[in-house]
Amino acid sequence: MRPAPNPIDALTGLLADDLRRVDQVIHARMESGVAIIPSLAGYLIDAGGKRIRPLITLASARLAARPGVRGPALESAVLLAAAVEFIHTATLLHDDVVDDSALRRGKTPANRVWGNAASVLVGDFLFARAFDLMVEAGDLTTLGVLSRASTVIAEGEVMQLAAAGQADTTLDRYLAIVGAKTAALFAAAAKVGAMAAGASPAQAQAMEAYGQNLGLAFQLIDDALDYGGAASTMGKNVGDDFREGKVTLPVILAREAGDTEETAFWRRVMSEGGAGQEAGDFERAIGLMRRRNALARTIEFARVYAEAARTAAAAVGGEPVWANALLDLPDFVIERAF
Amino acid sequence: MRPAPNPIDALTGLLADDLRRVDQVIHARMESGVAIIPSLAGYLIDAGGKRIRPLITLASARLAARPGVRGPALESAVLLAAAVEFIHTATLLHDDVVDDSALRRGKTPANRVWGNAASVLVGDFLFARAFDLMVEAGDLTTLGVLSRASTVIAEGEVMQLAAAGQADTTLDRYLAIVGAKTAALFAAAAKVGAMAAGASPAQAQAMEAYGQNLGLAFQLIDDALDYGGAASTMGKNVGDDFREGKVTLPVILAREAGDTEETAFWRRVMSEGGAGQEAGDFERAIGLMRRRNALARTIEFARVYAEAARTAAAAVGGEPVWANALLDLPDFVIERAF
Repeated sequence: MRPAPNPIDALTGLLADDLRRVDQVIHARMESGVAIIPSLAGYLIDAGGKRIRPLITLASARLAARPGVRGPALESAVLLAAAVEFIHTATLLHDDVVDDSALRRGKTPANRVWGNAASVLVGDFLFARAFDLMVEAGDLTTLGVLSRASTVIAEGEVMQLAAAGQADTTLDRYLAIVGAKTAALFAAAAKVGAMAAGASPAQAQAMEAYGQNLGLAFQLIDDALDYGGAASTMGKNVGDDFREGKVTLPVILAREAGDTEETAFWRRVMSEGGAGQEAGDFERAIGLMRRRNALARTIEFARVYAEAARTAAAAVGGEPVWANALLDLPDFVIERAF
Repeated sequence: MRPAPNPIDALTGLLADDLRRVDQVIHARMESGVAIIPSLAGYLIDAGGKRIRPLITLASARLAARPGVRGPALESAVLLAAAVEFIHTATLLHDDVVDDSALRRGKTPANRVWGNAASVLVGDFLFARAFDLMVEAGDLTTLGVLSRASTVIAEGEVMQLAAAGQADTTLDRYLAIVGAKTAALFAAAAKVGAMAAGASPAQAQAMEAYGQNLGLAFQLIDDALDYGGAASTMGKNVGDDFREGKVTLPVILAREAGDTEETAFWRRVMSEGGAGQEAGDFERAIGLMRRRNALARTIEFARVYAEAARTAAAAVGGEPVWANALLDLPDFVIERAF
């Protein structure tokens, strides 16, 4: 007996035709007479991202689609899904420059291959192309949703930059950062899909809430996974946030519950991009998180957002095949932590 | 007797009320709860740029305005003019990171005050805000003109990056770069102003040609001024392009007309961002340009574009006060070289 596919694979299967169109659009629109542009963009776009944001746009459109508007509405959704992926890719290229990380999607980041200048400019190109695609989709209202989301993402990124090295970042502040830099694009992706398919304002708003909460859950689980997730096992792909001195929710929860000595520890290891770190610090951080139950509590936070996402999507109605696929996604996001 | 004001000052006077509205919009829309954003953006925006692109949008709108659509059309033009300035400012912030220049508008560039990361992200914010403003202006067609221009600008910047250190960059290649990175925004600025005011397609196209040719003239004169202009005097503010190894039109014309030894000189001084330069090289470059008549010929090129700009604008018609102001601008751009 084959195991049930996970909800992302299930959605990818259900939406295979639409996704193929999205990929065609993405590859056609990253073309340019300037050869570096498709090379650099393709390096990241073809690096095996899960296309979760375009999936949400497409599924949201399917959920909200009325029979009469199906054809052209779904073509708009395809263009918007490609635009969403371009915006996401542009932010990743700029993040590489901002973070100077050593890895992105398991590869050397583009800026370490082509240089910071090329990554900044190709990011700009993809961002502009995203708006070309939205113009082609032909609706100023959906375009406004994505331009506002882009503004909010940039604000979130700047907030995150300002919080770097601030071990005493509060929970509220952190949730504001994550809500802006990560969840805003999930929210817009879900909303514009529904809008393209002729959703009512209430449905569009519900899908926006779905995306926002799903995005928050997604980011918090990512935060937990960087410390090994619920099991806090120290396998590979853990410790990046720690080494860069990124103050994420597990750190905030461990620090807030910690004693004076623990506070001093967090302040030292989180300052100046982790510059004050010593051998054994990561193991100690994991130990303190276990003592203060910080990873389990991070996952609990994520679970609350996942439940809010489910509640929002459940209010939309629509065909069960799409409703179920979207309702399964938040739980799956949480299960990744285990 | 007071001397006649230069055409930029004249336009600034004629459009004082509109420009005040543009400045209000700019300052309102660079606000953010994230304090770094208005600080960094304001540092550049208030550094005394001439606002030449918004001036072109506003004047183009006045030229094309039909009496019936004047009020709301001009409010759209104000929003679009602010959007154009935001796009321009975003590209300057990213250029600072790309070029790592020591000066911008006579000041330390923002990236040397706030860091590269903040300059990249605040540029992204302003770029996204530009699209918010265009959404507010309410017309998908004008928005498409500016999103396509943004794509072309990014392509031009990447082309320029690829040409860096290539002393054998051809004239055609160089004009393609300048047409994309500089003239495309002048063209879009002029076109969307006309479109907002209800111009006919022919008028909008004429204003686009005006902007494109004016932008080319503007950039070529800038290139000549970096070597002291027609007089090739070595005052202050000259030599930046040379020191950075930027292959501009005066270099191309001097190199193409030069003998083998001169070619070798240009190859050495233009390679790797000017890293191979020695004391006295700039003076020698000026000498070779004089020998090969390269600055005068650069200015001749610019004059051809300026004349094309005048011809394009003359075809639009409109009230003489605006027509004359726009027709005077290309000549003034050329006169700066003397």
